[in-house]
Amino acid sequence: MAVAYPYFFGPKKVDPTLMVSSSSSLSPVILSQDELKKVAAYKAVEFVESGMVVGLGTGSTAKHAVDKIAELLNTGKLKDIVGIPTSTITHEQAVSLGIPLSDLNKHPIVDLAIDGADEVDPQMNLVKGRGGSLLREKMVEGACKKFIVIVDESKLVNHIGGSGLAMPVEIVPFCWEFTLKRLEMLFIEAGCVGKLRKVGNGEEIYVTDNGNYIIDLYFKKDMGDLKAASDAILRLAGVVEHGMFIDMATTVIVAGKLGVSVTNKD
Amino acid sequence: MAVAYPYFFGPKKVDPTLMVSSSSSLSPVILSQDELKKVAAYKAVEFVESGMVVGLGTGSTAKHAVDKIAELLNTGKLKDIVGIPTSTITHEQAVSLGIPLSDLNKHPIVDLAIDGADEVDPQMNLVKGRGGSLLREKMVEGACKKFIVIVDESKLVNHIGGSGLAMPVEIVPFCWEFTLKRLEMLFIEAGCVGKLRKVGNGEEIYVTDNGNYIIDLYFKKDMGDLKAASDAILRLAGVVEHGMFIDMATTVIVAGKLGVSVTNKD
Repeated sequence: MAVAYPYFFGPKKVDPTLMVSSSSSLSPVILSQDELKKVAAYKAVEFVESGMVVGLGTGSTAKHAVDKIAELLNTGKLKDIVGIPTSTITHEQAVSLGIPLSDLNKHPIVDLAIDGADEVDPQMNLVKGRGGSLLREKMVEGACKKFIVIVDESKLVNHIGGSGLAMPVEIVPFCWEFTLKRLEMLFIEAGCVGKLRKVGNGEEIYVTDNGNYIIDLYFKKDMGDLKAASDAILRLAGVVEHGMFIDMATTVIVAGKLGVSVTNKD
Repeated sequence: MAVAYPYFFGPKKVDPTLMVSSSSSLSPVILSQDELKKVAAYKAVEFVESGMVVGLGTGSTAKHAVDKIAELLNTGKLKDIVGIPTSTITHEQAVSLGIPLSDLNKHPIVDLAIDGADEVDPQMNLVKGRGGSLLREKMVEGACKKFIVIVDESKLVNHIGGSGLAMPVEIVPFCWEFTLKRLEMLFIEAGCVGKLRKVGNGEEIYVTDNGNYIIDLYFKKDMGDLKAASDAILRLAGVVEHGMFIDMATTVIVAGKLGVSVTNKD
């Protein structure tokens, strides 16, 4: 049985019953990236049980999980689910599909959250927020008993920032250029460059659900100790939140061309 | 010569030339609290020199300093001052007085800032933000070479939170009740109670210059290690900034019934 990424997360015990793979006696089925996302999302929804309060993630992978939960509710295979959406987009998707919703004020403890990630490192630390919802995602997923991360294999990195893509930081609009420079200075040794996120034709500034801006940080080198980096960012006045999710994921489901792996945190 | 609070900030060297006091041979002049604030503010403005970029604080004490700077500019005793206001209120005051203004984007290094505080402890740590401008104040005052704090004697406390009055935390509006509970839980051993700041008749929620809410925290006991407390608050998703200004003040000017003391950080 082919097992994708058996060693990426270290020599942890991976439950073989949670493996899905193409048969080794046949040619592997070539799946598109979106199909891989769907495979990971559907696998995660198997962990949802009737009666649960479920955090509903945001983004192209999490969207498939929300769709699947709605399908199981509509066919009666799941009952009494309360969803906690992590963005206005997911809120709208869930409403359109008929998933009963609530919020953290009424349900401060969430049984399970399912969400995608932009990067996953071997310690299961994440970068999230390229979709712009990092703050609400972190609030919901920080309130979870279990947090299942669903990604396709392209999201695996040796270290946070290692994809060369953005690590987003949500900041207040007031004097954003000043805050951008201070962020770059924090990580000058890692070759950090920050860019204000724009939308459309690049003329319009992207504004988060909370009315803030996003600075996307790009690193040339490993930023080192992530907890120290996190505290340093949060200590900057003007910073609201950053997209590193450290020690939060409890399970990572990776879908790749050779199958699906489910790895639990030690 | 009577010296107010000579030992409050410990056995630091206090420059006697920077002392103002009522003569010991005469009965002390009884000044109102507002007159004391004015004495401290005017003393601070003596540190402003022509050509400086000056952070302009917010609140009833800082207002006197802004007035005085404008007076000195108008009489030609100060020249080429650029003010960096810490709130929209101070911005409006400075504009009405004709003080040239800029911002941190154009002037990322501020020579000197003058601002009040709600509490000052013996290590010169502060609580600020009862006026609601804590975030912009922290951004400006964090960019200063020198930060002069001006208070009347009623603001001196043995430990942060010791006045029994509010330590404000600026948070995003999203699920604010949830964030309030998490803040209280952080300091459950210090008997912490949080209240959403309201205005007017108590029906309307106070909104900061940045579109956020303020949770006022009240402590029954000393919260202990302030740097640890600060990091714990900032790590909560949903928190934007808090009103503890730790290791930021370089000079504290205290006006009391016995005179004015000027104490510099070691």
